[in-house]
Amino acid sequence: MIDFEDAARRAEILTQAMPYIRKYRDKIIVVKYGGNAMVSEELKRQVMEDIALLRMVGVRMVLLHGGGPEINYGLQKIGKEPKFINGLRVTDQETIDIVQMVLAGKVNKSLVNLLQQHGVKAVGLSGIDAHMIRAVQKDPALGYVGRITDVDVSLIRTVMDDGYIPVISTLGADDEGNIYNINADTAAAYIAGAMGAERLFMMTDIAGILRDKDDPSSLIPCIDIDEAVQLFNDGIISGGMIPKVECCIDAIHRGVQRVIVMDGRVSHSILLEILTNEGAGTMVMERKEA
Amino acid sequence: MIDFEDAARRAEILTQAMPYIRKYRDKIIVVKYGGNAMVSEELKRQVMEDIALLRMVGVRMVLLHGGGPEINYGLQKIGKEPKFINGLRVTDQETIDIVQMVLAGKVNKSLVNLLQQHGVKAVGLSGIDAHMIRAVQKDPALGYVGRITDVDVSLIRTVMDDGYIPVISTLGADDEGNIYNINADTAAAYIAGAMGAERLFMMTDIAGILRDKDDPSSLIPCIDIDEAVQLFNDGIISGGMIPKVECCIDAIHRGVQRVIVMDGRVSHSILLEILTNEGAGTMVMERKEA
Amino acid sequence: MIDFEDAARRAEILTQAMPYIRKYRDKIIVVKYGGNAMVSEELKRQVMEDIALLRMVGVRMVLLHGGGPEINYGLQKIGKEPKFINGLRVTDQETIDIVQMVLAGKVNKSLVNLLQQHGVKAVGLSGIDAHMIRAVQKDPALGYVGRITDVDVSLIRTVMDDGYIPVISTLGADDEGNIYNINADTAAAYIAGAMGAERLFMMTDIAGILRDKDDPSSLIPCIDIDEAVQLFNDGIISGGMIPKVECCIDAIHRGVQRVIVMDGRVSHSILLEILTNEGAGTMVMERKEA
Amino acid sequence: MIDFEDAARRAEILTQAMPYIRKYRDKIIVVKYGGNAMVSEELKRQVMEDIALLRMVGVRMVLLHGGGPEINYGLQKIGKEPKFINGLRVTDQETIDIVQMVLAGKVNKSLVNLLQQHGVKAVGLSGIDAHMIRAVQKDPALGYVGRITDVDVSLIRTVMDDGYIPVISTLGADDEGNIYNINADTAAAYIAGAMGAERLFMMTDIAGILRDKDDPSSLIPCIDIDEAVQLFNDGIISGGMIPKVECCIDAIHRGVQRVIVMDGRVSHSILLEILTNEGAGTMVMERKEA
Amino acid sequence: MIDFEDAARRAEILTQAMPYIRKYRDKIIVVKYGGNAMVSEELKRQVMEDIALLRMVGVRMVLLHGGGPEINYGLQKIGKEPKFINGLRVTDQETIDIVQMVLAGKVNKSLVNLLQQHGVKAVGLSGIDAHMIRAVQKDPALGYVGRITDVDVSLIRTVMDDGYIPVISTLGADDEGNIYNINADTAAAYIAGAMGAERLFMMTDIAGILRDKDDPSSLIPCIDIDEAVQLFNDGIISGGMIPKVECCIDAIHRGVQRVIVMDGRVSHSILLEILTNEGAGTMVMERKEA
Amino acid sequence: MIDFEDAARRAEILTQAMPYIRKYRDKIIVVKYGGNAMVSEELKRQVMEDIALLRMVGVRMVLLHGGGPEINYGLQKIGKEPKFINGLRVTDQETIDIVQMVLAGKVNKSLVNLLQQHGVKAVGLSGIDAHMIRAVQKDPALGYVGRITDVDVSLIRTVMDDGYIPVISTLGADDEGNIYNINADTAAAYIAGAMGAERLFMMTDIAGILRDKDDPSSLIPCIDIDEAVQLFNDGIISGGMIPKVECCIDAIHRGVQRVIVMDGRVSHSILLEILTNEGAGTMVMERKEA
Repeated sequence: MIDFEDAARRAEILTQAMPYIRKYRDKIIVVKYGGNAMVSEELKRQVMEDIALLRMVGVRMVLLHGGGPEINYGLQKIGKEPKFINGLRVTDQETIDIVQMVLAGKVNKSLVNLLQQHGVKAVGLSGIDAHMIRAVQKDPALGYVGRITDVDVSLIRTVMDDGYIPVISTLGADDEGNIYNINADTAAAYIAGAMGAERLFMMTDIAGILRDKDDPSSLIPCIDIDEAVQLFNDGIISGGMIPKVECCIDAIHRGVQRVIVMDGRVSHSILLEILTNEGAGTMVMERKEA
Repeated sequence: MIDFEDAARRAEILTQAMPYIRKYRDKIIVVKYGGNAMVSEELKRQVMEDIALLRMVGVRMVLLHGGGPEINYGLQKIGKEPKFINGLRVTDQETIDIVQMVLAGKVNKSLVNLLQQHGVKAVGLSGIDAHMIRAVQKDPALGYVGRITDVDVSLIRTVMDDGYIPVISTLGADDEGNIYNINADTAAAYIAGAMGAERLFMMTDIAGILRDKDDPSSLIPCIDIDEAVQLFNDGIISGGMIPKVECCIDAIHRGVQRVIVMDGRVSHSILLEILTNEGAGTMVMERKEA
Repeated sequence: MIDFEDAARRAEILTQAMPYIRKYRDKIIVVKYGGNAMVSEELKRQVMEDIALLRMVGVRMVLLHGGGPEINYGLQKIGKEPKFINGLRVTDQETIDIVQMVLAGKVNKSLVNLLQQHGVKAVGLSGIDAHMIRAVQKDPALGYVGRITDVDVSLIRTVMDDGYIPVISTLGADDEGNIYNINADTAAAYIAGAMGAERLFMMTDIAGILRDKDDPSSLIPCIDIDEAVQLFNDGIISGGMIPKVECCIDAIHRGVQRVIVMDGRVSHSILLEILTNEGAGTMVMERKEA
Repeated sequence: MIDFEDAARRAEILTQAMPYIRKYRDKIIVVKYGGNAMVSEELKRQVMEDIALLRMVGVRMVLLHGGGPEINYGLQKIGKEPKFINGLRVTDQETIDIVQMVLAGKVNKSLVNLLQQHGVKAVGLSGIDAHMIRAVQKDPALGYVGRITDVDVSLIRTVMDDGYIPVISTLGADDEGNIYNINADTAAAYIAGAMGAERLFMMTDIAGILRDKDDPSSLIPCIDIDEAVQLFNDGIISGGMIPKVECCIDAIHRGVQRVIVMDGRVSHSILLEILTNEGAGTMVMERKEA
Repeated sequence: MIDFEDAARRAEILTQAMPYIRKYRDKIIVVKYGGNAMVSEELKRQVMEDIALLRMVGVRMVLLHGGGPEINYGLQKIGKEPKFINGLRVTDQETIDIVQMVLAGKVNKSLVNLLQQHGVKAVGLSGIDAHMIRAVQKDPALGYVGRITDVDVSLIRTVMDDGYIPVISTLGADDEGNIYNINADTAAAYIAGAMGAERLFMMTDIAGILRDKDDPSSLIPCIDIDEAVQLFNDGIISGGMIPKVECCIDAIHRGVQRVIVMDGRVSHSILLEILTNEGAGTMVMERKEA
Repeated sequence: MIDFEDAARRAEILTQAMPYIRKYRDKIIVVKYGGNAMVSEELKRQVMEDIALLRMVGVRMVLLHGGGPEINYGLQKIGKEPKFINGLRVTDQETIDIVQMVLAGKVNKSLVNLLQQHGVKAVGLSGIDAHMIRAVQKDPALGYVGRITDVDVSLIRTVMDDGYIPVISTLGADDEGNIYNINADTAAAYIAGAMGAERLFMMTDIAGILRDKDDPSSLIPCIDIDEAVQLFNDGIISGGMIPKVECCIDAIHRGVQRVIVMDGRVSHSILLEILTNEGAGTMVMERKEA
């Protein structure tokens, strides 16, 4: 027997989604997903579900991922001793091999596999493919850690135009064929910029940009570049938040409309951001309207 | 403040819609809407909302409409005396002029206007345009009442391929340029068949095909052609239901996958049909699987 | 038996048409047809014949029409009392309904039907379809009389590119879905401009722009904008000619190459204009060459 | 001053041409022109004019030509003694060189040049280009006289699809690069057939197929294959008419709709054929309707 | 100073390559590369060089690879104890994870990287991407070893049509998202067949199919299916050669023109096969011409 | 038996060609070939072989040719007395007819025929076709010798885009249809410029630009425009070299990247130029890098 009341409620929710679907239809949304935001299997399933749904209703989704805990686990497994210089991990040949295998061989294909199970077509790529992410060594002391010199998004467009969701490991290569580990936030800023993305979602494991990093209620829901610079100057943005916010600003300079530092711990945070006017996290934009 | 519980519920409903969106994506659904199903303004708004939503998520929607009460109202307004032969209305030149004006000039453009307000692109057409519906006179005594000889759906495809929802008045023309009123159910069967539609929704003001026409609980949810023929033979399908069910069968013979005699009095009945396994009305198919 | 002399004469006339066909091939010609120019059925048939012929030889034709006498006839039929403010007709809800029905339901489909009978493909559209003509209320006292705010000609291009002749009723719509009657000359200037038309033919029931409005021999065959402004200043352009000439100038400012105020009472005046160096009416251009 | 009467007459003739233009629009018409039909410069100009006009109104024209008198003139000029075996000319290396130069270098480019002057785009090709006409030696005693083994019309389609009129010299080549003179009627049958032409016009210097070759009034206006075979059997088709009619039948077997043996001495005979129901010459078709 | 003699020799070799380039231009060649054929870095570089060169001159190359020694090395590294049942390796979850990482993360990206350095565009894919290779479990006792049920080569076509060389790891997935290791020879037969490949090159570390497996001079240069079946019956094909030759026959049944069991130990064996009439290895074809 | 050493050498040479193929792939190279460079049949075969090979590996080749000795031979054959004014040949009607026949009918088709035999598709065109080369009379006293006023390369692009090699006779036409002989070097500069060619190869029968015209060892391998002007001023470029070098400079001004005055007497000089860093002849460029 049909529950007409429930059906009406479903219909209402679906029709309420219409203006948002219209707004993002055929627009490009880049999701950067990785690190600590990737820990829960249930949340990972939901993130993929959100991406699949948005692709189905016509949004052009691109997923970039890092590796996070799985890389450490992989290194442990082969008994690799971590080495640090001034707190930064040294990436020798053996380490970059593990990073490459974990990112491009394991995490990437798992995400592709999850998306496929939700009924969309997904393709796993890396910055090595078609030399999409060109890089040079950042610092000889750190080994195979790369600095991006250029990105070429034509392969992403090729597969996206045929209806596939590109899923990209943030590795880079140089002319000699050396492979580098690339910071995923930085790569996301470059790629989302080169694609003229409407939105870049930076999935994290924090509530967003906070005025007081110990008080989640001090969340700043929306900020523009001038305000962000002021927060830098006032020392409110500090620690690990500094490079993340710098990436957001960089993405906007490269042509992204809005960057959202998104609380990946919230269920379906991507859909939530798309379907309400106040999303979960902090939206960074070029300039708030006066 | 975000209501996370409500947001989660919304996300859940949306993600539950995914397999259905996947199923109908890029498929053609023809909706025949008119007559008594068109009386309530609120229901009309909901039907247009459902069509707009499905178009937005990638279903290729076509809307055919008749006129119903508005034609009678138009005839009254000019003081036209209705004339009948054996209970069938005689359509003289003056009458067909009114029919044409009401259908192609008023009802058609109102539906287009409503769809446009829901954020989709709609184009009003009639069977006269590009001589899409070719017809001949059915019976000289009845005047300008036409029998379809041929349909050419290439204009529908042209506008549909460019993202517009075609909204079609069921008028026809012959080689000499005479205009005929065409039964909307029949036209729907021809056009949905010529387009190879996945679904034809016949919006009506009844619950569906009933075993006992006075008992809504006797609704037959699903029927195949053999069963329908048996119901004809048993006299269970009778009266006004006879031509409607004949149209359903004709549509299936012309290549439509499924025809649904749909209760247009139920809110969002189109979405309901798409989103649950038991929709509102009776589904007619070629053959039930054994 | 073949009449070789006649055949040779026919061949000669056809071959003489060659340079003109070459000149206009693949160019866009917009014809504005309506009002008093539309009274004779024989002339209407010839205008459609000319448009069909030009479409066949490769000219991209667009037809815009008003309603003229048929609207008055429709209003009379329902016994509607005309109301005027300062000589301008007040268009209440009932009036705009009749206008919409007559224009989009009757005149439009009759023109489409005539073109189809001449062997070309035609599609009837209105400014409501795809909200092609966006408008706002001109003056609350006048009711549903609209001022154009924007036109979107992409639907016209879609059907034109597929070989159809677009036939357009000059109605407009606003965001709330209100329908407005739109002056057909103004709409023609907007649409011909937006399409970058080579020619805009304004079919009228006068000889063209006259120096002495009572003396047809005072016809000005060709005029540029500076000269027109001078004629305004000298009071030679006056009365109903003022808005018409203003529309011609506006069309040129919007990008039309030449506008012709054309004597629609002359048989095949459109072909005549295309086939001789001195057409029937007044050609308006940006600047005569020195 | 405009001569309105003359203008009306012109308009009438042009509009009378409409159904014919519609009929042949986008269809392929192959014209075979050469030999004795090519003698008058005035007639040649008219043939080119007809072809140009038809191309302009959308007919896809292809022109094949032989050389006729110009080849003899060329051979005389270098003092080449003609040599015959059983009445057939022996084509040695020097002769084929002259044939090639006259056909592909002179006649071909003159026809292209004439067409260009009528405002259409024309391209001169030969059967050697892209090895469009593959041939083998017919008879060693005759030297470089070829028999067609295969034609490849893709080059013709390439230039035709870009709006050019292909003008083709009927030379052929074999795998070793030997060049052969090819009978133009035969080549026309092969090429028109391979293109699925609607019409093949065989321009000749006779009235058509005659029952009595000395009595032009015995012209057979229309004939089908069975009737032609009967005429062969009855000895009515004889002499030089035999291979010509065989070519007509061959063309129909290869897929041409109608072949017309056309009297090229009549002014504008091509337009005449297109514009009247009784053209100048004999139409050959597969089977007359009962 | 230019060495003209050397230059002439180079030009001669290049021009001698012409008929072969012509033969394979726009044809699809699938190369299966892996296992023991992959051991030498120098040979690997040459194989990639050959593939890059052929892609450059217009051959549509596809590269499928297995892993071979690198998988064993990876398993050793994490101290995984190999387990066998009847001589077949048991692939538990941990093992398939390593296989996936080595194949899709390491070998695949190294090959892509090498091809990119030779100036062509390459994209690394796996059978998981777009669920290109659908599989089911072969035998529960063996764990994640898959049997192919279906392949979908549309993603391969998408990237190939845009000029990329697809490089594919032979992993498979089922509907529940389980990942399976897939025999690379089998996958090559399926994929080359589905693409209608002109050639499938099976790179091995043996001379080809031998009559006496210990005598390289007993190489069979060319064999058809009937002959192969005879060799099976005669016990001449035995041991590890049995499944390989079965794959060759399967590939031909699936639509590949020719399969070559190619001696990958020979320098530039792919170019050699393409440039001489007797290549390095055994060609398998459907039927030798009588 | 395979000669593995030879095979390896071949493979090496082919793989060494890779960076050059990559460099010129999809680039346009125009070869001007004619006059004294055309005398040896063996060299002509090699030039065609080089052009065919480059086309096969993806370079977009265009061949322009003059006539040279064959024209004189043709004129002699008909006993035409040469007439000169100030050392320049007078081209009367009879002469231009011979020129046209020899160029467009003989030389052009022979080159096409040779290219076809090397397995590429070639199409013979002339400046008359599609009025590709527009010209006017240079000097009434010289008769039909033309000066280029304009070139339209769209026909060249049409056939080139479909994979054909355009082979072009440098004749020109004016609006009245007069045909002119056009200097092939000048035409090459215009056409290569209009196509934005990467290279223009001017095949000659000298070593290149020499400092001492009697000493081949004084060859200037590379020169820029400033240096060329200096050589003009110093009188080092003199005699027949003056117009040739002027053409080179003109070509560069029209948009060609590099022009090479190439020694056509050297075997496979075109391949040689493409495959070594020091080609056979003199390269002219806009400006040498400092």
